[in-house]
Amino acid sequence: MSHPDIAPTFQDRHIGPSETEIAQLLEVLGYDSLDALVSRAVPSQIRTAQPLNLPAARAEQDVLADLRTIAGKNRPRVQMIGLGYYDTITPAVLRRNILEAPGWYTSYTPYQPEISQGRLEALLTFQTVIEELTSLPVAGASLLDEATAVAEAVLLMRRANKTASSRVLVDAGCFPQTLSVLRGRADAVGIELVMTDLDRGLPDGDYFGVVYQNPSVTGGVRDLSESIAEAHRRGALTTVATDLLALTLVTSPGEQGADIAVGSAQRFGVPLFFGGPHAGFISVRNGLERMLPGRLVGVSKDADGSPAYRLALQTREQHIRRDKATSNICTAQALLANVAAMYAAYHGAEGLRAIARRVHSHAAHLTSGLHAADIETLHSNFFDTIVAHVPHRAGVIVRAANADGINLRYIDTDHVGVSCDEHTTGEIVERVLAAFGAALAPVDTSYIPPTLTRTSPFLQHTVFRRYRSEAAMQRFLRKLSDKDLALDRTMIPLGSCTMKLNSAVEMEPISWPEFAGIHPFAPADQTEGYRELTDDLERWLCEITGYDRVSLQPNAGSQGELAGLLAIHGYHTANGDTDRTICLIPQSAHGTNAASAVLAGMQVVVVATATNGNIDLDDLRAKIDRHSGKIAAIMLTYPSTHGVYENDVRTVCELVHDAGGQVYIDGANLNALVGLARPGEFGGDVSHLNLHKTFCIPHGGGGPGVGPVAVREHLAPFLPSDPLAADPASPPVSAANYGSAGILPITWAYIALMGPDGLTRATETAVLSANYLAGALAPYYPVLYTGDGNLVAHECILDLRALTKATGVTAEDVAKRLIDYGFHAPTLSFPVNGTLMVEPTESENLEELDRFIDAMIGIHAEIQRVADGTWPLESSPLRQAPHTAAQVTTTEWTLPYTRQEAAFPVPSLRENKYFPPVRRIDGVHGDRNLVCSCPAPEAFEAPSSTDTREEVLA
Amino acid sequence: MSHPDIAPTFQDRHIGPSETEIAQLLEVLGYDSLDALVSRAVPSQIRTAQPLNLPAARAEQDVLADLRTIAGKNRPRVQMIGLGYYDTITPAVLRRNILEAPGWYTSYTPYQPEISQGRLEALLTFQTVIEELTSLPVAGASLLDEATAVAEAVLLMRRANKTASSRVLVDAGCFPQTLSVLRGRADAVGIELVMTDLDRGLPDGDYFGVVYQNPSVTGGVRDLSESIAEAHRRGALTTVATDLLALTLVTSPGEQGADIAVGSAQRFGVPLFFGGPHAGFISVRNGLERMLPGRLVGVSKDADGSPAYRLALQTREQHIRRDKATSNICTAQALLANVAAMYAAYHGAEGLRAIARRVHSHAAHLTSGLHAADIETLHSNFFDTIVAHVPHRAGVIVRAANADGINLRYIDTDHVGVSCDEHTTGEIVERVLAAFGAALAPVDTSYIPPTLTRTSPFLQHTVFRRYRSEAAMQRFLRKLSDKDLALDRTMIPLGSCTMKLNSAVEMEPISWPEFAGIHPFAPADQTEGYRELTDDLERWLCEITGYDRVSLQPNAGSQGELAGLLAIHGYHTANGDTDRTICLIPQSAHGTNAASAVLAGMQVVVVATATNGNIDLDDLRAKIDRHSGKIAAIMLTYPSTHGVYENDVRTVCELVHDAGGQVYIDGANLNALVGLARPGEFGGDVSHLNLHKTFCIPHGGGGPGVGPVAVREHLAPFLPSDPLAADPASPPVSAANYGSAGILPITWAYIALMGPDGLTRATETAVLSANYLAGALAPYYPVLYTGDGNLVAHECILDLRALTKATGVTAEDVAKRLIDYGFHAPTLSFPVNGTLMVEPTESENLEELDRFIDAMIGIHAEIQRVADGTWPLESSPLRQAPHTAAQVTTTEWTLPYTRQEAAFPVPSLRENKYFPPVRRIDGVHGDRNLVCSCPAPEAFEAPSSTDTREEVLA
Repeated sequence: MSHPDIAPTFQDRHIGPSETEIAQLLEVLGYDSLDALVSRAVPSQIRTAQPLNLPAARAEQDVLADLRTIAGKNRPRVQMIGLGYYDTITPAVLRRNILEAPGWYTSYTPYQPEISQGRLEALLTFQTVIEELTSLPVAGASLLDEATAVAEAVLLMRRANKTASSRVLVDAGCFPQTLSVLRGRADAVGIELVMTDLDRGLPDGDYFGVVYQNPSVTGGVRDLSESIAEAHRRGALTTVATDLLALTLVTSPGEQGADIAVGSAQRFGVPLFFGGPHAGFISVRNGLERMLPGRLVGVSKDADGSPAYRLALQTREQHIRRDKATSNICTAQALLANVAAMYAAYHGAEGLRAIARRVHSHAAHLTSGLHAADIETLHSNFFDTIVAHVPHRAGVIVRAANADGINLRYIDTDHVGVSCDEHTTGEIVERVLAAFGAALAPVDTSYIPPTLTRTSPFLQHTVFRRYRSEAAMQRFLRKLSDKDLALDRTMIPLGSCTMKLNSAVEMEPISWPEFAGIHPFAPADQTEGYRELTDDLERWLCEITGYDRVSLQPNAGSQGELAGLLAIHGYHTANGDTDRTICLIPQSAHGTNAASAVLAGMQVVVVATATNGNIDLDDLRAKIDRHSGKIAAIMLTYPSTHGVYENDVRTVCELVHDAGGQVYIDGANLNALVGLARPGEFGGDVSHLNLHKTFCIPHGGGGPGVGPVAVREHLAPFLPSDPLAADPASPPVSAANYGSAGILPITWAYIALMGPDGLTRATETAVLSANYLAGALAPYYPVLYTGDGNLVAHECILDLRALTKATGVTAEDVAKRLIDYGFHAPTLSFPVNGTLMVEPTESENLEELDRFIDAMIGIHAEIQRVADGTWPLESSPLRQAPHTAAQVTTTEWTLPYTRQEAAFPVPSLRENKYFPPVRRIDGVHGDRNLVCSCPAPEAFEAPSSTDTREEVLA
Repeated sequence: MSHPDIAPTFQDRHIGPSETEIAQLLEVLGYDSLDALVSRAVPSQIRTAQPLNLPAARAEQDVLADLRTIAGKNRPRVQMIGLGYYDTITPAVLRRNILEAPGWYTSYTPYQPEISQGRLEALLTFQTVIEELTSLPVAGASLLDEATAVAEAVLLMRRANKTASSRVLVDAGCFPQTLSVLRGRADAVGIELVMTDLDRGLPDGDYFGVVYQNPSVTGGVRDLSESIAEAHRRGALTTVATDLLALTLVTSPGEQGADIAVGSAQRFGVPLFFGGPHAGFISVRNGLERMLPGRLVGVSKDADGSPAYRLALQTREQHIRRDKATSNICTAQALLANVAAMYAAYHGAEGLRAIARRVHSHAAHLTSGLHAADIETLHSNFFDTIVAHVPHRAGVIVRAANADGINLRYIDTDHVGVSCDEHTTGEIVERVLAAFGAALAPVDTSYIPPTLTRTSPFLQHTVFRRYRSEAAMQRFLRKLSDKDLALDRTMIPLGSCTMKLNSAVEMEPISWPEFAGIHPFAPADQTEGYRELTDDLERWLCEITGYDRVSLQPNAGSQGELAGLLAIHGYHTANGDTDRTICLIPQSAHGTNAASAVLAGMQVVVVATATNGNIDLDDLRAKIDRHSGKIAAIMLTYPSTHGVYENDVRTVCELVHDAGGQVYIDGANLNALVGLARPGEFGGDVSHLNLHKTFCIPHGGGGPGVGPVAVREHLAPFLPSDPLAADPASPPVSAANYGSAGILPITWAYIALMGPDGLTRATETAVLSANYLAGALAPYYPVLYTGDGNLVAHECILDLRALTKATGVTAEDVAKRLIDYGFHAPTLSFPVNGTLMVEPTESENLEELDRFIDAMIGIHAEIQRVADGTWPLESSPLRQAPHTAAQVTTTEWTLPYTRQEAAFPVPSLRENKYFPPVRRIDGVHGDRNLVCSCPAPEAFEAPSSTDTREEVLA
């Protein structure tokens, strides 16, 4: 805090080092003040002249009170609009022990599988749910939403299908937002959509794929078997967008022959959240698994041969395969997928079926009541949604329901849609019927005929039977999260990921019904609170970035990139510059950049790195010359992924601008800029931001994310349109207009709590702490790149290659050994192989920074013992790391170091020791023997003593 | 759940065993149905003929919605009434990570210290806060509220003072509720209160003690040094009721010479909660520590000689010393004490001082403004509270403030009180002044003169400096709770404690501002929600117990007992039966019973136990004869603490009634009766209930509790009065009329969720599970007492005495060894030495029951290896238990069993292992070397490597 006897503000809580500690760090680094340090580190040509013009910082209780006022302007109603969003009951045990539990929401993407077994098991459970309900053998660990899942499926079908056709048939029964997103994505990569009413049969012509929606947008449930078989005969692959709850009662896409199923897992316990975040899903038949987009959890084994989970087939993904990746997706929706998985586990097959039967029964009663009042409905087979034909009366009926607190779907003047869900009751059905001028009538027919009735079993694994009591579920969730290391136990010094504090006060509002219970397509007068929130946020983010307009639609950084590139593409096209298709990308860029460029229909040209780590200006000039007139854009990261404020960023921007290109500045490292420099001022035309990095949205074990895109005025017309817009001016990138609206209160709260001075000080402290770490560790591990004053930005790359060459100890060994010291590893081998990239963020105090330094120095000493021959590499604690409790308590101990050196290499661990549940995991084994659903319990369990006991009782 | 495809209800979630599992258990026991089992176990003569007449069960979301409606009828305002309750800002990090964190709130009282180090450390921090702020060296680990703390202090002074006087002087400056509670407590034990204005000097006469309040009820801050010195000279001890926040600025009771300080820690971050629960505190000078009431945490050492915490001087307490105990208190306010401790740690000395200065500054500005408007105030020295003299205008002013959303204190027609707190702002001060017709004016004088200004340091320990950032605090809280075993990781099969599920949905409402933010003395029209809640609860509890009236005032079981006994006393007195002072108490009773009887002014006469464990009817008759005409009451527990439904309870009741006595049935074991039998029907005149046992309020690591007292009509006039009643008809037992109002929504939700059938089924399942455990374990450990059909009630006593005699392995060894198996021990040596009392409750499913059975059988096998000489007792895993991670990874291992046998005695532990942070604790050492504040860090820490690093950096 600033002075004795000045009560701490939120800023003092968010920023780890106290004023005294900041002074200590500055002294070590030889600077008088934060300002002096920052002035040296940040090139003057990019420093902004204007301090942030944002509301002054407010206290926790005041910001909470403001948010309550804003929330009060949203009006939750009975939500029966449907269209892919259905109200659901989040069991309180899941809300408290996942959504509101720091151990779950502050964890990172499980790239370090040994400290991620809990969330990997949960995600594997999610995959199992999807696989079994869709009857397709391999499901991914979540996609971003249903509309983008359909787009990913279309891209997958195209990759997988060798036909020359670039046409895909699309069912007119798809949701409008799906069609809207798909259209934009298809256009960008030259796929032709052919919309058709597939109930009338397949039209002539060649198609690489067919997309169905079943149940359809109007609620019809169909047997697609024949149509799918016909599509297959004609060489097309098939995708069915479907509904998980319906699949508990009706035959599944897999059973109907589909190659791919997609959809949203929202209604499995995840609140409506005004459109997101929700987990999209995808599952595929055998043979397509290696083409899956996004993350996939698989089973492998650890060094003991015990089963262990990890992300499978990562070579498909953007962080490795770059422009050849199956998708640009990086962040997924892990937290929401985990809620959905546990919802399924808590209810089990019979519980889900019971919920589905009740939902269906309400829809059936609605139908009967309408028919009794001589009102026609569209389909004779349906699950939860009916569409009533009410000539000229739709407006009156929807208004009548609205007046009674119920949202129905206004389709057109003659049609009203009603979707039932877990919240629907008999009393609500009567009120809906009353709005139609109808009343209850007996149900005397079946709306799911035997031919469509599911008879195959699902969710038979023990995980779907074992945790049916709340005590059992609570303990299961605790057990899983205890297996993992998250921010609530240790710093996570992941370069480029900005794992800063996720404050409790920022998280509280997302559970409030007034934010959680809003349908994305609710009437505007029910969502004024959300609009106030998004208006504020758009304005504040403009002020922070120096851009003119922000779209909050992208629900992940990758989608923000795509939206930004599509805006650039739209701009060039509008200018008649249709040849501008080259996207320049520096060697050190995130893989997502390249993957996104491809999805935006661009061609990637790589720009080399100079020896100092900066962009090689000569190479840049050469590439610009070579592709003269074709440069669409350059995608920079600033500060660069090398953790350095490059001096010549303005030059780079000018060169590209001069060549007619646009400058895309990746906002991944914005935590080094806020309050000090604005990408929109120093040369950027467009940036995406990662609210889940710089702006405190927790990583959730691998999502949700929010990736707003910010642009200068000339690109504003090309920002994503509302996916429900009748005639979208530019392609939407998410199913809902504010992709992850439900978690935007977190960022709103952060900015409101910190105020302009706090945000700036956070940036300065992040730079200070990174330089303190770099300085302390440089004698042991050379810092690969530095900028002016030998300073780094907010992160630094520790180069282990010389040590590796000398001793064989790899950066991975160090990363795994850090687990034994109680740390999550820094970023491994990105952007440079054989290195660790360390980013402390501003939230870690001196004690934690020093604990990390001590660990790294301790590990360095261990490496010396390998170097000097004391420990053979293979039997060193570095290569053996991480060590489990089981391992260090074996009766035989043949390793050349002690058990204590294995488990308690520093004394502070005595007080606070984390044991990983598995030893080092063999990823290759798992990729060779792909298993992506929950393994049988026998794989883990030891013989039970039940028999013995029963003998005694008998 | 009942049938396939019937969606589970809350009942299915709360009750652990599924329908299938219940059938399995019944089969093992040889019964066809739950009803058959229960009919056999429960004596027909006590079975009720009337099923529970309660509202039908409702679903989670419906009960939450109802509670939101109820909460909406409370109206939080700006609370400036004061009188011991001051609004405070609970930091969100504490709310989420303590109050809403299952690891904290589901833990039990730390009687098993090895698995309680985290909460013991937190409580020790609380003690340190109290000790340092009051400048008295030994503080307890919390009392129930400020008023009862004053009463406890008076009793302590009387015990400690050898003078013959039974008179105590009481400052007229005490809070009215304090005086009201104290009067009742003093009357009961023959202490004479002499009320006086101590500012006018000590009156003549002999007194064993003097009670001051400083700051006083009207806000005056005084230097009591001379008065205290004078009291000492006259042989009296002195107690000062004080305010923690004031003590950061003004000289403390210890500095002024007091022997004892008491008060409430509420304003250290604990919500107003309409009066409670809050942590009361007490601290004493050296020499009085062995007379302290309630729990005291102290430092001792474990088997390795490492520092370890445990409850100190337990021989003072009721569970050991019974009628000779220092107090009847059993439950404390651990959870709230821990919040207060962490609030102090989070703010540190300078933060607290800053808050206090701001509060004082607001009060000073109020004073200046009033003076400028020619309104007099009562004191020239004050901290946060002022009283304005406003002849005939008090009503008008209070109403004006009320209309502006501010609650002031109406004292009388001429006086208005205003208390500032952490929520007060300059703007609020202006609004308050406006209500007086005044305006801001400069402050030009000091209201805390130098003579009263505190200059001594406080909170200098590292714990008050180390966790100032939210990340650090969050991790500290996680680290502490990870050291402990609570219900969120394992069953806690504690006989007589009923550690059942604390459902998330029941817990959610207590954080809502509409429940948390209400002052206990707020006008009735602001508390309609609370009144609806308490009316419902009182009615429902009457229906469940068969009594006619319930008082929710007692904020712990012990206070419920006291209230019930005082009601009996009042009844006898009203009938002129002043000789009826004998309270019959069976040998097997909880110690609290005897201690409460003494505090109610009764004399305890013990009734013997027959060989079958039941009350010895012959002895009962003999005792009744011997004390003919003097029998006030008998205190029974039913089912008895032996875990058996006694057949002759009606006979016992009749015998006592015939002798003119009243029957007190302790509700501790009500979990075996709900829905099956009603104490009010089968002979009880009065019972207290433990809402924190049967009705799902979590134990919070040792409180809060709620102990409502229920009576038949003839005792209703003698239920506790409102402590603010002008002329209380009978003595209040808590400072607030609804002692722990803030947590009553938990019980309300539980009853609403379960409905009559669910509640009954819970009871039946609890009995079933206890009998399953008893049956499974009896071949290994004899069940000491059983009733009809060889059945137990809801718990059973495992008799280890024969095993101990044969092998030396004690019940304590088994309790500690259970920790290695991942369990909290059952109740140890109560009610019979050398036994374990096991209560599974209805919330544990078959898997967890079996896991416990497997552990107990595994331990039995270990005992056999001691018996057969394989393992010497001292070096057996039983005596060595519990084993820490440090211990099982030592380089040398000389024990005759393996490390694996030590740490992983059953295979399931591989997947989910808890290591205790310390080895077995030597309690005696700690009692001989009493240390009751946070030890210096050097006691724990190993040398740091900072020096090395700085060398390198330099």
